Amino acid sequence: MRILGIDPGSHATGYGVVERRDGRLHHVAHGTLRPPRGASLAARLDYLYRAVVDVLREHAPEVAAVEQVFVAASPRSALVLGQARGAVLSALGAAGLGLSEYSAAEVKQAVAGSGRAGKREVQRMVRRLLELERTPSCDAADALAVAIRHAHAGRLEAAGVSGAARRSRGARRSLLVAVRPVR
Amino acid sequence: MRILGIDPGSHATGYGVVERRDGRLHHVAHGTLRPPRGASLAARLDYLYRAVVDVLREHAPEVAAVEQVFVAASPRSALVLGQARGAVLSALGAAGLGLSEYSAAEVKQAVAGSGRAGKREVQRMVRRLLELERTPSCDAADALAVAIRHAHAGRLEAAGVSGAARRSRGARRSLLVAVRPVR
Repeated sequence: MRILGIDPGSHATGYGVVERRDGRLHHVAHGTLRPPRGASLAARLDYLYRAVVDVLREHAPEVAAVEQVFVAASPRSALVLGQARGAVLSALGAAGLGLSEYSAAEVKQAVAGSGRAGKREVQRMVRRLLELERTPSCDAADALAVAIRHAHAGRLEAAGVSGAARRSRGARRSLLVAVRPVR
Repeated sequence: MRILGIDPGSHATGYGVVERRDGRLHHVAHGTLRPPRGASLAARLDYLYRAVVDVLREHAPEVAAVEQVFVAASPRSALVLGQARGAVLSALGAAGLGLSEYSAAEVKQAVAGSGRAGKREVQRMVRRLLELERTPSCDAADALAVAIRHAHAGRLEAAGVSGAARRSRGARRSLLVAVRPVR
């Protein structure tokens, strides 16, 4: 199974592709998509949409996973982030890809063993788990981490650990787009 | 000049197309785009993106105009609205359409003569200005109103009323995506 993890942002959108094969995780690709800074909003969102389409075409993932949004501060930043997510998710929708969402704590737990791990710890553990030669950027590491989290979910399901219930709850939640303020 | 006004929303996105010809405004089309309710978030955004592409193909507007977002209440609603705007604006970006943004007060002023006009007043005035047989829905009326506002802006520029300054301020503002809380 080939999984795309994606971490949308208005300035930088990280992506990471992993594959579960022979009971192990393999790194396929990762990177950061950066719309041209000077361009108009619509042109930047179009860039993002097309870049995601290119990633899908090049790496042909079978499913996609994103982090649920914990809206940080203001409605303004939520709107700007929402616009980037809108471009990214409509490109995933166009490809008919199934989309799973995981909380930040679930993702950190999966790669670093703790829901409270810091950014650097996530980067370090992603590098180790996927045997990468270099530490990936923050955005790409987050994207790879959510792909790894999804690979774990699949493994739990295969082992019969309340997978169906977990997945259907997740699907319902993803329609609502869970947003919780940071405490 | 053919102008598309668009009013993105997660449940309903209104659109309206008007044309300025022989010094007068003519109605071309309007409607409401409604993604299927039961579908996943990505599928709904993909629906919205495609529906906008269809509108562009059918009516071939030369420019587009949207309302600036006054974020009403919560970061959650801003995120959800942002996602719909992201799908709509990336479709406009893909067509290479210029995009202008106007405040709600500017739009109401243009159609109803007052920046504080209510929803029904906007619907009524849009119907009268464009000589429509029936009153358009709220969402379509808002979209037609922003298109009418843009047509007025063009007329002021043609008359030499500080058009360049107005336009360049508008363009800069549209990169930032002005968001102001409702008082």
